[in-house]
Amino acid sequence: MSETGATAILKEEVDIVIPTIRNLEFLEKWRAFFEPYHLIIVQDGDPSKGIKVPEGFDYELYNRNDINRILGSKSHCISFKDSACRCFGFLLSKKKYIFTIDDDCFVAKDPSGKEINALEQHLKNLLTPSTPFFFNTLYDPFREGTDFVRGYPFSLREGVPTAASHGLWLNIPDYDAPTQLVKPLERNTRYVDAVMTIPKGTLFPMCGMNLAFNRELIGPVMYFGLMGDGQPIGRYDDMWAGWCMKVISDHLGFGVKTGLPYVWHSKASNPFVNLKKEYKGIYWQEELIPFFQSVSLPKECTTAQKCYVELSKQVKAKLGKVDEYFNKLADNMVTWIEAWEELNPSVAPKSDALPNGSAK
Amino acid sequence: MSETGATAILKEEVDIVIPTIRNLEFLEKWRAFFEPYHLIIVQDGDPSKGIKVPEGFDYELYNRNDINRILGSKSHCISFKDSACRCFGFLLSKKKYIFTIDDDCFVAKDPSGKEINALEQHLKNLLTPSTPFFFNTLYDPFREGTDFVRGYPFSLREGVPTAASHGLWLNIPDYDAPTQLVKPLERNTRYVDAVMTIPKGTLFPMCGMNLAFNRELIGPVMYFGLMGDGQPIGRYDDMWAGWCMKVISDHLGFGVKTGLPYVWHSKASNPFVNLKKEYKGIYWQEELIPFFQSVSLPKECTTAQKCYVELSKQVKAKLGKVDEYFNKLADNMVTWIEAWEELNPSVAPKSDALPNGSAK
Repeated sequence: MSETGATAILKEEVDIVIPTIRNLEFLEKWRAFFEPYHLIIVQDGDPSKGIKVPEGFDYELYNRNDINRILGSKSHCISFKDSACRCFGFLLSKKKYIFTIDDDCFVAKDPSGKEINALEQHLKNLLTPSTPFFFNTLYDPFREGTDFVRGYPFSLREGVPTAASHGLWLNIPDYDAPTQLVKPLERNTRYVDAVMTIPKGTLFPMCGMNLAFNRELIGPVMYFGLMGDGQPIGRYDDMWAGWCMKVISDHLGFGVKTGLPYVWHSKASNPFVNLKKEYKGIYWQEELIPFFQSVSLPKECTTAQKCYVELSKQVKAKLGKVDEYFNKLADNMVTWIEAWEELNPSVAPKSDALPNGSAK
Repeated sequence: MSETGATAILKEEVDIVIPTIRNLEFLEKWRAFFEPYHLIIVQDGDPSKGIKVPEGFDYELYNRNDINRILGSKSHCISFKDSACRCFGFLLSKKKYIFTIDDDCFVAKDPSGKEINALEQHLKNLLTPSTPFFFNTLYDPFREGTDFVRGYPFSLREGVPTAASHGLWLNIPDYDAPTQLVKPLERNTRYVDAVMTIPKGTLFPMCGMNLAFNRELIGPVMYFGLMGDGQPIGRYDDMWAGWCMKVISDHLGFGVKTGLPYVWHSKASNPFVNLKKEYKGIYWQEELIPFFQSVSLPKECTTAQKCYVELSKQVKAKLGKVDEYFNKLADNMVTWIEAWEELNPSVAPKSDALPNGSAK
């Protein structure tokens, strides 16, 4: 499949979801790569403040008034004044693939100086299988010029469907506030020319800045939680979504890749503001990770939705004692799924619609 | 720690183990990097055929006669006419770190054209901790210019001791015979500038061509099995060692890294010969991998030796039914440990020497 071929085929199957464009240069800089696609922009701030999308882009724009109007009594599950609101775009999309990117991320260049088409690389990652059951030392075996190495079991070479593709960042690395404070000048200049599957059973810190996923496979679990205004925590929206997504992908037999593509992350957010948002997350996380490492989903959970509802129950049972916040979060996870099923009724498998007692 | 600093400090703590030098150019090509170190050369072929080591190298050379003389009735545990004999060098070494390399691997160049000091990179990998419990998306957080990313739990940032460093190959990739036959012209030209920890619970295909390890931590499990003359299988020596090493490192809380350094693998071995050696391994492996994925070692196994003896029992119990070969292999795993303890008596922890009933 040629590069242009892959993207041409998929043009109608992709939405680009962008939370809150503050930087008007952002879309201009991405014009060559984004103009052929449909954009869903979710503004997290004051709904009376409009934004001006440059000519030529095909887009939908939503603000808080739209979220309230569309979700009604369920609108509380979407974070207010926080980029976590991006998941409202995931909910509204009707496409198979989502690419989401932050407005301070620009086109990076590869070591040869060529501009990187991030979306195209994400689609390549999503369109080729993942290999979560065994590590391939030459990285993604489905990339051109490489393969499975000696000793890789043949029965595992078919791979599994890829649920998500996590891209990286040149220039400003995605550090937490303490690391930002300690290393204010550190820049990521290392271009690692690799894509790899994160093994089954292994958690990772999923960053929402440069992320793509298969909405049909795992859209319903890509809820970015409750962050921002009125919440005790921030900057854990993507992490929360990533941990939920990874344990559910592991359970459902999907793979998650990380590595290429890179974007150019232009500016570090304020570490003092970040520290205030993060500090509860930093210590709560010490209990969240053992929780997610030990999550076990029953085999009756055969869809992303069922897994997510089951996970919400376990969150309430096990994390409610860490802080009352997790009870509220668990309730909103359920609200999110209700909203998902309302707006995406066809996604629920047909067997669920059978009346009780029907033959399987 | 400067590059030269690290290697200078460690000069007395490293042995380079080379199985069977057929190519006289090999040592000349590595002279600048290997001359400061002690070499242990283990010849696998006809003991009456000598080899000529060029002037200036500090080396010990062993052939089959030496193996028989030194190990006596235990010498059957060392493979005959196969590069698996390299583990005899691991047994005899008294150093903390081992670097082992094949004679068809030469000095590779990084993308800037600089010759890669493979041993130096291996030592850097071994001297910095591993992070097997959580995946860091910017790869080895202990490398210069990088760190743990946002969302990496702080309690896991100390890492664990690194047991092994698995290096890669430019030019000829390490493919099995079927892949060699299907892709005879494929060359690895991709220099991936990364080192990473293979997560806990994940197996990988360990190649012995370019490998280093901490002999104090996991030397006793680096047994390369029974291959070559008189055995039904070949080319699974390093794989076997790798699977044993990984499950035992996971149990003991050590880490395993893969990635840099690269060597230049000059020539592909004959795929027809390889197919003959490999074919039993290719289907046996389908039972070996589930076995290794389910190995569980009791907490009483607190040393590499104890783990390895326990593993040999499980091999006999679970794999003996796959083929009689695995019963023989299990017996030789025990012989190997006996040989190890004979030649390395001080490695056994002191508490083992206490008579029964003594206070702990």
